[in-house]
Amino acid sequence: MNVAVLSGGVGGARFVRGVVDVVEPRAVTVVGNVGDDLEVLGMHVSPDLDSVLYALAGLSDEQRGWGRADETWHALGTVAALGGETWFLLGDRDLGVHLVRTQALRSGDPLSAVTARLAAQLGVEATLLPATDDCLRTWIATAAGELPFQEWFVARAARDEVDGVRFEGADEATAAPRVLESLAAADVILLAPSNPYVSVGPILAVAEIRDALARRRVPCVAVSPLIGGRAVKGPADRMLGRLAGGTSPAHVAGCYAGLIDALVVDERDAHDLAGLGDVRPIVTRTLMRDADARRALADAALGTVHA
Amino acid sequence: MNVAVLSGGVGGARFVRGVVDVVEPRAVTVVGNVGDDLEVLGMHVSPDLDSVLYALAGLSDEQRGWGRADETWHALGTVAALGGETWFLLGDRDLGVHLVRTQALRSGDPLSAVTARLAAQLGVEATLLPATDDCLRTWIATAAGELPFQEWFVARAARDEVDGVRFEGADEATAAPRVLESLAAADVILLAPSNPYVSVGPILAVAEIRDALARRRVPCVAVSPLIGGRAVKGPADRMLGRLAGGTSPAHVAGCYAGLIDALVVDERDAHDLAGLGDVRPIVTRTLMRDADARRALADAALGTVHA
Repeated sequence: MNVAVLSGGVGGARFVRGVVDVVEPRAVTVVGNVGDDLEVLGMHVSPDLDSVLYALAGLSDEQRGWGRADETWHALGTVAALGGETWFLLGDRDLGVHLVRTQALRSGDPLSAVTARLAAQLGVEATLLPATDDCLRTWIATAAGELPFQEWFVARAARDEVDGVRFEGADEATAAPRVLESLAAADVILLAPSNPYVSVGPILAVAEIRDALARRRVPCVAVSPLIGGRAVKGPADRMLGRLAGGTSPAHVAGCYAGLIDALVVDERDAHDLAGLGDVRPIVTRTLMRDADARRALADAALGTVHA
Repeated sequence: MNVAVLSGGVGGARFVRGVVDVVEPRAVTVVGNVGDDLEVLGMHVSPDLDSVLYALAGLSDEQRGWGRADETWHALGTVAALGGETWFLLGDRDLGVHLVRTQALRSGDPLSAVTARLAAQLGVEATLLPATDDCLRTWIATAAGELPFQEWFVARAARDEVDGVRFEGADEATAAPRVLESLAAADVILLAPSNPYVSVGPILAVAEIRDALARRRVPCVAVSPLIGGRAVKGPADRMLGRLAGGTSPAHVAGCYAGLIDALVVDERDAHDLAGLGDVRPIVTRTLMRDADARRALADAALGTVHA
């Protein structure tokens, strides 16, 4: 069974880890968000791709929830001592990835080729693809003005309420090599429990990818990132409340109108399934506390086709 | 008393540390070699400037002889795992300097301005200047062809005998801001115990600097890097033997013909002072085992003007 997963960073990465635990990893393709990518200290950083990469390679820091296990911060300590750019936290082990990727990108390699090489070197068997090799960047409209994603998310700790989201470069962006082929070859397409606006949204902003989902001949199952109407972490609930008018499963499904056949929702949202229309609810426990919970959630999402 | 020191990396950096121990640091200007500069993993690295910077800031690893104390190597470990460029060893704490410097250079700052800022941030009171802000690079002619300095020195461990040294860009290079002013204001000019060909040589390859030394009105004192005709570390003795025909004090002084008034030589070379001509020998112990030895060597070199 071939599985394609559209995924953002941390929560999506955890889910992807569950998917490769219940499906042959070589049959899994992850299409990752690049709208969060940024330049830090002169390096190209792809935070969401790296979260998935580290999860798939077993290198994630499970406690902290982002970055690498057993991380140190000596380079950033020097940068701080020198009055340099420290708002975006980069650990020493993490830095090695950014250095190698940046050097490869500067030499002209597309992001997809670099990502494939990094994944292969780390022994990752699943396929990890950026949504696009083109420059697609997420901007957040707030009362303080339109902000680059990471300035809003990290530098300002996502405290500004979001009035809108714009994907710079989306109109010209084409899907990275193998993305459309992977979606066409998939027996099921999953949307990870990531923020619909700023994690899955930038992937769907690539018209070729959105069209592929709209024209799908296989089930597409989204996993809600909300539990009891609240985000486990991050601003997804506030954004849904403000931009969609609520945080019920129907509001989540509305973000994917015409693109999904089922929505995995938490037991705590089972009382509130009105308005889902054609979208079939799959009720289960969705909090990914540990490896067992990750696998159970992946199984629930894949249930449609497992059966 | 104003002191100007022309210095290469490790040995020179140790000597400079001794100089600021015996002279008011604010009265000391170090003019550093940039011929060894290179690009590693997309970053601009200035190994000799950094050796001096770390020595002056008290951050050097005294045991290893290069790089920073209390260093870790996690970023490079990741680079290695990813099949990246690891031939040039960059520690985590060291990396922070390269990141900040590279970002500043890319934004258009000249190397001298970046160097001044780094030194100030690290609390260095002496003035550290690159010989030039222009691109001046050392090439080494060998039987294996002409090699970039670091390829010969690090990647091939300086095992190829040297047939000649060339300084690419030297003809167009001008002295960095404040270099000529510092030499003009100096009460004494010192040439650190660095390799005359590849450490001090690239500094003197800047015509304005060489001319300033040739026209000096104050004493210029070189410190021989050889003890008993042998280099403490590195290929200086092999280079002198091959390119100058010997490793006596006169052969060292010959590298600085017309530019120096005195040469500090080790007691072990005191038997071999023939051929120095106008250059006055200053015999002392030159091995910089510890802080006391560094200070004693600086005092010996400065004796001319101390007296």
